[in-house]
Amino acid sequence: MKKGFIDLGFAKLDIEREKRKGIPEIIYAPQKTILQLKKIIQEFKKHTDLIFISKLSFNYYQKLKKSFSKLRYFKIPQLGFLGKERRERRGFVCVISAGSSDIKIAEEAAVFLDLMGNRVERIYDIGVAGIHRIKPFESKIKKAKVIIVVAGMEAAILSVISGLVSFPVIGVPTSCGYGTSFGGISSLLGMLNTCSLGTVVVNIDNGLGAGYFAHLINR
Amino acid sequence: MKKGFIDLGFAKLDIEREKRKGIPEIIYAPQKTILQLKKIIQEFKKHTDLIFISKLSFNYYQKLKKSFSKLRYFKIPQLGFLGKERRERRGFVCVISAGSSDIKIAEEAAVFLDLMGNRVERIYDIGVAGIHRIKPFESKIKKAKVIIVVAGMEAAILSVISGLVSFPVIGVPTSCGYGTSFGGISSLLGMLNTCSLGTVVVNIDNGLGAGYFAHLINR
Amino acid sequence: MKKGFIDLGFAKLDIEREKRKGIPEIIYAPQKTILQLKKIIQEFKKHTDLIFISKLSFNYYQKLKKSFSKLRYFKIPQLGFLGKERRERRGFVCVISAGSSDIKIAEEAAVFLDLMGNRVERIYDIGVAGIHRIKPFESKIKKAKVIIVVAGMEAAILSVISGLVSFPVIGVPTSCGYGTSFGGISSLLGMLNTCSLGTVVVNIDNGLGAGYFAHLINR
Amino acid sequence: MKKGFIDLGFAKLDIEREKRKGIPEIIYAPQKTILQLKKIIQEFKKHTDLIFISKLSFNYYQKLKKSFSKLRYFKIPQLGFLGKERRERRGFVCVISAGSSDIKIAEEAAVFLDLMGNRVERIYDIGVAGIHRIKPFESKIKKAKVIIVVAGMEAAILSVISGLVSFPVIGVPTSCGYGTSFGGISSLLGMLNTCSLGTVVVNIDNGLGAGYFAHLINR
Amino acid sequence: MKKGFIDLGFAKLDIEREKRKGIPEIIYAPQKTILQLKKIIQEFKKHTDLIFISKLSFNYYQKLKKSFSKLRYFKIPQLGFLGKERRERRGFVCVISAGSSDIKIAEEAAVFLDLMGNRVERIYDIGVAGIHRIKPFESKIKKAKVIIVVAGMEAAILSVISGLVSFPVIGVPTSCGYGTSFGGISSLLGMLNTCSLGTVVVNIDNGLGAGYFAHLINR
Amino acid sequence: MKKGFIDLGFAKLDIEREKRKGIPEIIYAPQKTILQLKKIIQEFKKHTDLIFISKLSFNYYQKLKKSFSKLRYFKIPQLGFLGKERRERRGFVCVISAGSSDIKIAEEAAVFLDLMGNRVERIYDIGVAGIHRIKPFESKIKKAKVIIVVAGMEAAILSVISGLVSFPVIGVPTSCGYGTSFGGISSLLGMLNTCSLGTVVVNIDNGLGAGYFAHLINR
Amino acid sequence: MKKGFIDLGFAKLDIEREKRKGIPEIIYAPQKTILQLKKIIQEFKKHTDLIFISKLSFNYYQKLKKSFSKLRYFKIPQLGFLGKERRERRGFVCVISAGSSDIKIAEEAAVFLDLMGNRVERIYDIGVAGIHRIKPFESKIKKAKVIIVVAGMEAAILSVISGLVSFPVIGVPTSCGYGTSFGGISSLLGMLNTCSLGTVVVNIDNGLGAGYFAHLINR
Amino acid sequence: MKKGFIDLGFAKLDIEREKRKGIPEIIYAPQKTILQLKKIIQEFKKHTDLIFISKLSFNYYQKLKKSFSKLRYFKIPQLGFLGKERRERRGFVCVISAGSSDIKIAEEAAVFLDLMGNRVERIYDIGVAGIHRIKPFESKIKKAKVIIVVAGMEAAILSVISGLVSFPVIGVPTSCGYGTSFGGISSLLGMLNTCSLGTVVVNIDNGLGAGYFAHLINR
Repeated sequence: MKKGFIDLGFAKLDIEREKRKGIPEIIYAPQKTILQLKKIIQEFKKHTDLIFISKLSFNYYQKLKKSFSKLRYFKIPQLGFLGKERRERRGFVCVISAGSSDIKIAEEAAVFLDLMGNRVERIYDIGVAGIHRIKPFESKIKKAKVIIVVAGMEAAILSVISGLVSFPVIGVPTSCGYGTSFGGISSLLGMLNTCSLGTVVVNIDNGLGAGYFAHLINR
Repeated sequence: MKKGFIDLGFAKLDIEREKRKGIPEIIYAPQKTILQLKKIIQEFKKHTDLIFISKLSFNYYQKLKKSFSKLRYFKIPQLGFLGKERRERRGFVCVISAGSSDIKIAEEAAVFLDLMGNRVERIYDIGVAGIHRIKPFESKIKKAKVIIVVAGMEAAILSVISGLVSFPVIGVPTSCGYGTSFGGISSLLGMLNTCSLGTVVVNIDNGLGAGYFAHLINR
Repeated sequence: MKKGFIDLGFAKLDIEREKRKGIPEIIYAPQKTILQLKKIIQEFKKHTDLIFISKLSFNYYQKLKKSFSKLRYFKIPQLGFLGKERRERRGFVCVISAGSSDIKIAEEAAVFLDLMGNRVERIYDIGVAGIHRIKPFESKIKKAKVIIVVAGMEAAILSVISGLVSFPVIGVPTSCGYGTSFGGISSLLGMLNTCSLGTVVVNIDNGLGAGYFAHLINR
Repeated sequence: MKKGFIDLGFAKLDIEREKRKGIPEIIYAPQKTILQLKKIIQEFKKHTDLIFISKLSFNYYQKLKKSFSKLRYFKIPQLGFLGKERRERRGFVCVISAGSSDIKIAEEAAVFLDLMGNRVERIYDIGVAGIHRIKPFESKIKKAKVIIVVAGMEAAILSVISGLVSFPVIGVPTSCGYGTSFGGISSLLGMLNTCSLGTVVVNIDNGLGAGYFAHLINR
Repeated sequence: MKKGFIDLGFAKLDIEREKRKGIPEIIYAPQKTILQLKKIIQEFKKHTDLIFISKLSFNYYQKLKKSFSKLRYFKIPQLGFLGKERRERRGFVCVISAGSSDIKIAEEAAVFLDLMGNRVERIYDIGVAGIHRIKPFESKIKKAKVIIVVAGMEAAILSVISGLVSFPVIGVPTSCGYGTSFGGISSLLGMLNTCSLGTVVVNIDNGLGAGYFAHLINR
Repeated sequence: MKKGFIDLGFAKLDIEREKRKGIPEIIYAPQKTILQLKKIIQEFKKHTDLIFISKLSFNYYQKLKKSFSKLRYFKIPQLGFLGKERRERRGFVCVISAGSSDIKIAEEAAVFLDLMGNRVERIYDIGVAGIHRIKPFESKIKKAKVIIVVAGMEAAILSVISGLVSFPVIGVPTSCGYGTSFGGISSLLGMLNTCSLGTVVVNIDNGLGAGYFAHLINR
Repeated sequence: MKKGFIDLGFAKLDIEREKRKGIPEIIYAPQKTILQLKKIIQEFKKHTDLIFISKLSFNYYQKLKKSFSKLRYFKIPQLGFLGKERRERRGFVCVISAGSSDIKIAEEAAVFLDLMGNRVERIYDIGVAGIHRIKPFESKIKKAKVIIVVAGMEAAILSVISGLVSFPVIGVPTSCGYGTSFGGISSLLGMLNTCSLGTVVVNIDNGLGAGYFAHLINR
Repeated sequence: MKKGFIDLGFAKLDIEREKRKGIPEIIYAPQKTILQLKKIIQEFKKHTDLIFISKLSFNYYQKLKKSFSKLRYFKIPQLGFLGKERRERRGFVCVISAGSSDIKIAEEAAVFLDLMGNRVERIYDIGVAGIHRIKPFESKIKKAKVIIVVAGMEAAILSVISGLVSFPVIGVPTSCGYGTSFGGISSLLGMLNTCSLGTVVVNIDNGLGAGYFAHLINR
């Protein structure tokens, strides 16, 4: 352990990551057995009070719940949490989704930010097909410290929102759509090619990554 | 000739196209020699007073000018025209470009529509990075019969404009941009995936095709 | 509500879209729960008599039917409809499919156009492998105001049909085919690269979008 | 030499190919020096009277002409020929091009077939945008033994032609076009996905390969 | 019917195709209902004694068998056949597969050729990893009139076989493989780029198309 | 002008952008004429003292210099600047490049940040092939507020750097490389798929965009 | 059999491969029936004591076990083995995986190497997000003769490891990841574009191929 | 310098690489100025007697020659060398090219191997279109310790060669070809999907990388 990680053979738990990066390793549930997850959680519990388990199915959650009674579960973003919610009430992050199908990914960011002590404002389903739906939220949007925009299809909302504000905007392309949306490539390209400065992009469907980055710059 | 076309060997001129499609074949200049162009123009002159030559270089234009003194040339869209401009003053078509680099393609549509007797309103460089630039033009836009939106990069302007109006919007993706714009693929995908109903798309950089389609529906 | 939409949290219903675009928002069923759909339909019923629900599974339809007894269902295009069919008997739209596997998407357009008061003529399965099958329909095709061509594979039929007529032709590439059809990319590229002027394209499998666009220009 | 090839170090000349494949190796000029070409031609001259040099620039031709006074040159397909033209007057091959820009590739096939003793009928520029241009040639087309269809863009002509005849049709996609033609990918996909049986495809711009294959089956 | 096809509404049966192309339309089973298939077969039976049904599942076959007791079924290539096997004993076609997983597609060609009166020689599983496995078959291969090579992965066998013979070779890329085989793209590209003249290619997994083309040139 | 922009016809200058976004529009030089650039600069000069001209060739710079004697030019990143350098001495941004070919893009970010009043530390050519080259800079890197990592090829350095620090890391993929680097796609994908949290990505070669984003979060 | 293979019709068993390549053909289980597998194994048993069956499902294993009681099964890499384990104790191969999801592919290599008489050292889950996890293994890594690095996502670990050592490193990209990992393309490109000399790559998920190659050079 | 590298600002020279990897950093000439190259060479000269400069144009070579009179230049592979050729006469490496256009890349490997003290046997232009050209070289090939196969187009030669030998084969895809060779993608995919075990692949056109890897395993 003095080398900075715990060696379980099938996994090397990076217990110094919290010190280095401000947050411990997030456990990615898919392709792990219940037994492996249990071992990992048990080890992490000795070193941190912030345990996130991502892409956790409800079925898996129910099985883990038996061993870890305090495990909380967020159904829409399929996120498990064990530990102590932060209550620092940092600046306020606005999480915007273009459509209602993008909410699953948006909630990955929103719930994470919430638990980490950021104030979060959700504005869902304001795609640019009806741009007047943005208006009533404009003043709220302008008060944020950071914005996360979650969008599939052509992702035009990112450019519109970013054009309105002077602070960082993080785009999360989603795999929503059909035909030429190509599993998120259309929205990824749309976001990378935005004509508006002040935006960056994360991997397709990586709501958690966007949430973590927003947390980093929301101080 | 009674078969409906003239056979020059290297080309079969479709002289019935005007009757069938309302407009004669448009001559595509690249990869033709001056001599071939001359022969084609000479033949067409016998059958129509509407001769368009697309992607015509200035150099080529100067050479053709010697044989056809009435040949007109539009430098930005590289369009040649010989014949009689239509003056029907049809309904009004709005040609919008997202950036100033898209003007070359936008003018392909605008000049063509103009010569064919449509009223044309050009609104150039109103990308969504500064969405307030759309406002002052909104009432004008809403009076159009058809809209053509020419845009490279992420092409978000198409969705925004289309969301405002109840009449047809034609998107022309352009090859403007760099990096992941991939020669127009990003804007093509953006336009095909627009969340706003009432839009269609033509090939990348095909301003002329959009102009012709707008002409068809502007009656 | 005076802001022009109704905020259900998970969705912002754009109730002014009918005024702006001539038709209310179309409800996209996938990824919504029955409960969400019910709430959305209930709200929309207060504001419009034209409610379309797209990609509605038969199973979902049966559940919604219990709450909305007048809900109609079109099985092939998986389309739900609630409200008052338009009977304006507008000009006539011709919906053509290349193969019999493209009918599902073609019907999305045809049923929509029908309900919106357009006269519709369906001509299915006339791919160019037997081009004589087009002949007997030629005079009918030439009487249309707009044509929609629905085709997978190489989509050659679009160029052939468009070459015959002087009015707008809208191509809908479908994901039918195998091997290098790549889920519709081959037909999309075929349609975008058509050598025939007067054509435009919508997203792969977007029959509804084509139907709506045809409705706009069929006046 | 008894091993069946001549070893020049930088090249192994397959002098048995004529015996095995009915035609000697075709010399591909690009990326070879004049000196290398001379050496190769000199060697081949000892073994065959059929020497083809493909993609030969006019400049290179002029230099080789000094050493090989009987070298013939075909400018449009950039083909060099040295030897004895075949005069077997085999069955008749029809070489069709969709547009006039495809002629360069079509001539690669046509000139080769001609020199190898096949009767060749060229029909150029009969794209499907004006399908009536096919009619007058229909009876001629139906008399061929094999057909080669050379087309860029959407390549719809292949399906139409193939639907008319009961003998083999070989498609040659070309890199002609712009925007989403992607250097010939659109026409390649169009040809591979044709709904008409009895067609095969060669590499993009490979007119010579199609010519050779046609020669093989024209007996 | 005098227009050359029978109109069932959902399908236009091209009953003149046999006259035009030497073989009637092949019925593609997927996405058709049992009822539709029955209707189509019933109609075709009046006009031809050659009915092929491709991609026919065993389940579907059993249901159709009840109505058409003479329907034959070939399990590996999932091919149905009703009618009179041809017994012309034409020249001999060699069907080669690179691996044993390609046999399903190879049999599509082989069974079709067999029923149409061609002699067929199957040589399966002779990929180039053990090139000595080709040797013992070399003299047989050289006696064929046409060769079909069916291969997934890198499809190197096509070039090797084609280098040995002076008659036509048809490549069928298959979707066999994993990782970067990309559903057949690797073998398709391999076959299109073969350095050996005298080869052509059909769509991925299109064994039937290759069989039909081989039939055309095997006279 | 009270509408918030100046309309030059070919361009709409967004003079409120500085107010909205903290920085005025950056002028993109390519595809503009000298005359157009002059007009734009002249107008902007009335409204701001921060004028950046990106991708400005040396030739163009020399011509503009005649009209704007105070115009400064940065040769490596091809950046022009006119106005008043900011001297706020904000926190410190570390700009890292993987190879020496990436410096051109890295300098786009570094010079911009410098002029906007950020302290900048450049660390160039520390690709992971010699990971010991990172060591001596580790303590400096850990003192930054934000890091920009500019890398072509496989971009592995992004994950390594990001793993070391607890503050935001912005990746800029570059088009450096050959073969399968595909003009920057390999590094873009590498960066989007990084296994290290706390990173975001901008468009290929978009050094300026990364610089601007870093400026936003460096407060 | 004197031709060097056994002809089972559906398969030609290359029984000389062991002599030629040092190892007999590896049997690929998918798409073969139990009966076919049995026949193949029975034949091979007469000629070799090294029988590997790859991608063997547990279900299939259980069925084969009844006929071949000595058949061994390795569950994680889905590998079957029948014969005599080699005990040559060759030099030592280090098999490294970036994440715990890559272990399945890593074990394909490791188990194979083990059975073939190589000493194997497994180091799993040392992705570069926590590069200090590499440190404690550095001296062990440096003692290897060959290294295999198995990694999905951005595969940065390959460059880092390769930069540390003077002996061959073989990269195995895996299909692990989501979004833009595109089934392994991102890691394949990352590995091909590594800036570190001394590395080569095999197909995505081809752990066995890497194991065999390592075996070849570990002498 | 005690940190293991020399910091020239624009470059960090890894002077410990020779110790770590057995060979010093190879200097990549493109995108460096003559001045930068001079500085780098000067520094390296103090630490090693093995200086390779890759992709060095003849023009650049002539300029550097003035400062470094002992600089040697290899024209075909554009390789510069300064230092002391190794004369260890290691085992023998066979460098095979499929066509004569691949020689440029093959020579990158061959010259490098030669200078590093490996015996090298070049066999150029033995593509599989005439597989008998391989025969006479078979016994020589089988005596090698390692084989490098350099091939564009479909790269079938790799599988054939690898099937013959029991030692490592390294594939180098080249960008030779046209149409669907897509700058080397077709040969890369062909090589990755080879059905023959015992092969690995490097980046497109990376002859040097293959040479270095062969050097590593040729002991």
